Amino acid sequence: MELESSTAPSLDEEELDQLMAVADKAKLKAYSPYSNYRVGAALLASSGDTYGGCNVENSSYGLTICAERTALFKAASNGERNFKAIVVTSDHSEEFIYPCGACRQVLSEFGNMDVYMMQPSGRIRRTTLEALIPFSFSKKILDDAEKQRLEEWE
Amino acid sequence: MELESSTAPSLDEEELDQLMAVADKAKLKAYSPYSNYRVGAALLASSGDTYGGCNVENSSYGLTICAERTALFKAASNGERNFKAIVVTSDHSEEFIYPCGACRQVLSEFGNMDVYMMQPSGRIRRTTLEALIPFSFSKKILDDAEKQRLEEWE
Amino acid sequence: MELESSTAPSLDEEELDQLMAVADKAKLKAYSPYSNYRVGAALLASSGDTYGGCNVENSSYGLTICAERTALFKAASNGERNFKAIVVTSDHSEEFIYPCGACRQVLSEFGNMDVYMMQPSGRIRRTTLEALIPFSFSKKILDDAEKQRLEEWE
Amino acid sequence: MELESSTAPSLDEEELDQLMAVADKAKLKAYSPYSNYRVGAALLASSGDTYGGCNVENSSYGLTICAERTALFKAASNGERNFKAIVVTSDHSEEFIYPCGACRQVLSEFGNMDVYMMQPSGRIRRTTLEALIPFSFSKKILDDAEKQRLEEWE
Ligand SMILES: [Zn+2]
Ligand SMILES: [Zn+2]
Ligand SMILES: [Zn+2]
Ligand SMILES: [Zn+2]
Repeated sequence: MELESSTAPSLDEEELDQLMAVADKAKLKAYSPYSNYRVGAALLASSGDTYGGCNVENSSYGLTICAERTALFKAASNGERNFKAIVVTSDHSEEFIYPCGACRQVLSEFGNMDVYMMQPSGRIRRTTLEALIPFSFSKKILDDAEKQRLEEWE
Repeated sequence: MELESSTAPSLDEEELDQLMAVADKAKLKAYSPYSNYRVGAALLASSGDTYGGCNVENSSYGLTICAERTALFKAASNGERNFKAIVVTSDHSEEFIYPCGACRQVLSEFGNMDVYMMQPSGRIRRTTLEALIPFSFSKKILDDAEKQRLEEWE
Repeated sequence: MELESSTAPSLDEEELDQLMAVADKAKLKAYSPYSNYRVGAALLASSGDTYGGCNVENSSYGLTICAERTALFKAASNGERNFKAIVVTSDHSEEFIYPCGACRQVLSEFGNMDVYMMQPSGRIRRTTLEALIPFSFSKKILDDAEKQRLEEWE
Repeated sequence: MELESSTAPSLDEEELDQLMAVADKAKLKAYSPYSNYRVGAALLASSGDTYGGCNVENSSYGLTICAERTALFKAASNGERNFKAIVVTSDHSEEFIYPCGACRQVLSEFGNMDVYMMQPSGRIRRTTLEALIPFSFSKKILDDAEKQRLEEWE
């Protein structure tokens, strides 16, 4: 494991190793007949439980889901609402693959977390969700807008 | 349990009871602060395993996922590729709630299955996925189109 | 033009010819570097105006949009809320290509309409949106559920 | 107009004024019966043409589209592939509303551009798309992965 990061991680080495193993294994379940591009993710909830996910593609491309969101939907449907970290990996050996904008948005619904990008070799880089989606659109904005709308009606 | 259906179901009563219980329980985990509308689903794979799902909403409404797809993504990321039946339920007591078009499409990627709509009272209605999305857009169409495209190039 | 249909169309031949031409032309603008599969659509609003659309794909497959929805979003953002018919076409010469489930759902938000599937040769088949997405999930369901929820609180 | 920005804009004041007017007008066409939250956008293509967009919601929340993507799909289906700037506005008077992650991803498919957030009062803030979605997932990644996959097969 070779970690690139300029700030302190939220996980210790053992936790990260375990999360990387879950992401690697989750990748093997990918359903990706259209892109031939397998992605795996592992999401660590504050509860201590870990949720793996892979991409699940669809003939109508727009209904494809990414590995990161699969992991998040699994966790959320298990009652999880707070997360510590996510690891993302693919078959692509020469690049660190970052989550797409849709996944950044869906993850950010539940607050900030560490985001790790892992190459198949085990090389890993760390950042945070807030760094990947600054000024995110959030529930607070809709709540404030609704409040303002109701006040204007009075 | 009061089942409305004109054709023979693919499940026996015990299997259906168990699937209904999973859907009911999955509904309780819904994250639906925007619609205040909770939906639960339970998907029975050909392996015999059952996967529960709920809706997980997002402040960017377009990134919301339905209960049926949550269940499907959980199953698919566990390696499941064939399904026997899905049960859908909500808090809405007076209507049978059918899956939206996006869920019909995502489920149909993996072939036909029975679809059960359940009211909170336990009243239930059965149909099939093919009846809900006739002439579905599928992988075969893209494969044929690609084959035709390559032939035209030769 | 060779039209397959068992029921009376909502358009006369001239209107249909014009709509088919718009769909054909819209297809040429497709941005489809991932699927290499071009689709065009033309949507006729009750106002008499026509809106063309093509698929616009994304490297994150799940953010891809279909031709039918592009046409609908163009029309809706121009203030249109009622529609008479949509024509869909692709480069695929041997099949009638039907809208995916997501497009059926988005179109059905605005009620029923005729749906025409056109082959590059000009062969055409007609159906209705309601036939393609029976028992559709709709605004009425959410409105009723909200009403029921508020009543239970009283 | 009161512009907050630390770097030089890509538009002159007249162009920006015109784009702001288009966004304001596009907002009025919003179809938002679920959120009651209207958003407008105006996208300036390198061709010099401007495309307005609004949010178009759906009873299946996940099929809702944002104003920014409506504008982008209109432009792309008109053949546009390069963009200079986008303006986003809403009815929310006290906040600068930034695009959601899905819109950032869809816009970034076509490269960088200026992004302006406008309040109803005319107050405006400027940033760039690259600042809003750093390390974006892109076509290049899929192309490289495909190339690597084919090389490994040889
Ligand atoms: Zn993603
Ligand atoms: Zn659905
Ligand atoms: Zn579609
Ligand atoms: Zn958006």
